[in-house]
Amino acid sequence: MALAHSLVVDNIGSLITNDPTVGEGPLGILRNAAVVITDGDVEFVGPAGATADERIDAEGACVLPGFVDSHTHLVFAGDRAEEFTARMAGQPYDGGGIRVTTDATRATDTSELDRLVRLRLHEAHWAGTTTIEIKSGYGLNVADEARSLEIAKRHTTETTFLGAHLLPSEYEGRADDYIDLVCTEMLDASRPHAKWIDAFCETGAFDEEQCRAVLEAGEAAGLGMRLHGNQLGTGPGVQLAVECGCASVDHCTHLTDGDVDALAGSDTVATFLPAADFSTRQPYPDARRVIDAGATVAIASNCNPGSSYTTSMSFCIAIAVREMRMTIDEAIQAVTTGGAAALQRDDVGHLSPGAAGHLVILDAPSHHHLAYRPGVPLIRHTIGPLGSES
Amino acid sequence: MALAHSLVVDNIGSLITNDPTVGEGPLGILRNAAVVITDGDVEFVGPAGATADERIDAEGACVLPGFVDSHTHLVFAGDRAEEFTARMAGQPYDGGGIRVTTDATRATDTSELDRLVRLRLHEAHWAGTTTIEIKSGYGLNVADEARSLEIAKRHTTETTFLGAHLLPSEYEGRADDYIDLVCTEMLDASRPHAKWIDAFCETGAFDEEQCRAVLEAGEAAGLGMRLHGNQLGTGPGVQLAVECGCASVDHCTHLTDGDVDALAGSDTVATFLPAADFSTRQPYPDARRVIDAGATVAIASNCNPGSSYTTSMSFCIAIAVREMRMTIDEAIQAVTTGGAAALQRDDVGHLSPGAAGHLVILDAPSHHHLAYRPGVPLIRHTIGPLGSES
Repeated sequence: MALAHSLVVDNIGSLITNDPTVGEGPLGILRNAAVVITDGDVEFVGPAGATADERIDAEGACVLPGFVDSHTHLVFAGDRAEEFTARMAGQPYDGGGIRVTTDATRATDTSELDRLVRLRLHEAHWAGTTTIEIKSGYGLNVADEARSLEIAKRHTTETTFLGAHLLPSEYEGRADDYIDLVCTEMLDASRPHAKWIDAFCETGAFDEEQCRAVLEAGEAAGLGMRLHGNQLGTGPGVQLAVECGCASVDHCTHLTDGDVDALAGSDTVATFLPAADFSTRQPYPDARRVIDAGATVAIASNCNPGSSYTTSMSFCIAIAVREMRMTIDEAIQAVTTGGAAALQRDDVGHLSPGAAGHLVILDAPSHHHLAYRPGVPLIRHTIGPLGSES
Repeated sequence: MALAHSLVVDNIGSLITNDPTVGEGPLGILRNAAVVITDGDVEFVGPAGATADERIDAEGACVLPGFVDSHTHLVFAGDRAEEFTARMAGQPYDGGGIRVTTDATRATDTSELDRLVRLRLHEAHWAGTTTIEIKSGYGLNVADEARSLEIAKRHTTETTFLGAHLLPSEYEGRADDYIDLVCTEMLDASRPHAKWIDAFCETGAFDEEQCRAVLEAGEAAGLGMRLHGNQLGTGPGVQLAVECGCASVDHCTHLTDGDVDALAGSDTVATFLPAADFSTRQPYPDARRVIDAGATVAIASNCNPGSSYTTSMSFCIAIAVREMRMTIDEAIQAVTTGGAAALQRDDVGHLSPGAAGHLVILDAPSHHHLAYRPGVPLIRHTIGPLGSES
């Protein structure tokens, strides 16, 4: 066995630990601090001046846990810039463009799809993401869903089977038949590569009963459950997710009082995807209302070529603060501990001894700069497992 | 005299020339193109395969003119992250924080201020900006205004004397006395380092007559005129700027029908500063209305520590498209030819033989990606005079 290797990130002006028992406020901030990472895990968090085999000088900058992006669709080919441009010129978003990406993805060979995923992961890593969930959902047949998940699993443990993303055109008018396929043969082929199951519960995608069938089949097969819901209007998504015990319900753009109450009374995380609301010109959700009710919230990128083609969690933070009535501290929590909760992980999203040694060093003295300096690439250095280290 | 040095940027998938006589549409787009730059100026624009002393392969990416950022306040010390955070929590913006930056700037020595400007220029360069205007306005006394402009002039020809930015606290209750100082001794000391004069025409800053006095004094001293107006509410700014023949009136967040008519009937450019509207939570201006009326529009970053601490013109483009009813093509024009018009420059903002050889190579096949991929740093390579070449 090789000797342990240790790395100290020293001279940290402001360290966000997310452990309120060791530092200031809900983010557990330590000033003039150091973090020691040994063999990939945090070994020490405390005053600057710690020693280790290797040293990185943060030069007084802010350091925070690497971002946990709990919702992406990275396995795809092609882009939909033209659809985006048409939408910005007034054409409404209805999710129908998913079929364009499905055609492109099916037609692309596995090595090229894998190369595209690697490029996107590299981009996400440079933008500070160190834990990422990746969904299928652009295969929409047995072989291509399983293939998408097999590719995703090369890069992350957080893989999600989303066969119920949209009805493929070959099943037009036969949605129940397609759902049967998703729940049987497609699930069987995908299950070895998936940790989670997901469905898109929305007018134009799948209804409550179809989504319930998918979630129940996934759970019976040993997968964790998550759901897309309430993106384009109110609907049964949130309450179905809570009823089924999903780890997370994602979008939550349109919520009734009953939805907010259901979230607050559950362990289901409300995951907001503000970059999707940005790029589809949806109204922004009022996160304040959900937080104040007592629900746990996360923010994720939803990186995909149709409704949210960004890997930038910093951009999502800035939008959440400007538009969703979140404080900067809440937005930081939502992209770290919130994302971890949405994936039911307790080893990421915080920097405490024993946690994963995933962190970002900012080109800024304070985490406030992630909202205060919108559009500026403030991630100076990412330490974590995705992509190559920057 | 040294031999001419030539550089070809070859294998460009999509080249935005901004010359509609040579390519498709208003952006004059050429496909599969090359640009040759000789001794800093564009020598050739045409089909891929051109030769030169040095070659950069754009690998099919989009290339466009470097951004012209016609409105920044880069000469300052300190930051105002706490003011930003308080504002996001509900405190309104009234511009009063300018005094905080004035105190910090006056207290900082010249070499440190110059270092800070260089860092910000480097950041702007990496974000694709190749022509930049820099204002004074955080000195607010004779020596510090002149010093700020002396620093700015080391880095750009587009320097603007903004002594009338806000009333310094030592002149509380004596605004007319301060304006007298601005128009005489401060102008005399600043004029050698300035190309433009500017004033902040807004409730809480200076009124119409005070701003008119400043503009007239500047013009008499040989400076070009520009004006801040209509940021926080409607007011006399736009009409004063048009009446005086200003090159540009900047902010234009709140416009009456009369303001729009005045802009449309003039050569004064309407410069929008969407990142300031973002960071002060102002409503976004309706650029569509101004463009459709026939006015020339620009977009600039307004980089400053109070209301808009970003150098990212890409961010400004994305916000303009999402929020201001501009098409992507119009937003691209606004940050290139629009910025050039606001500075009365015809050598930048386009790529035609004889123009400055300032361009950016994107990590994307199309300029649409600047709005389609918000928050993602898409500037792969900037060729231009600001900062060191990336």
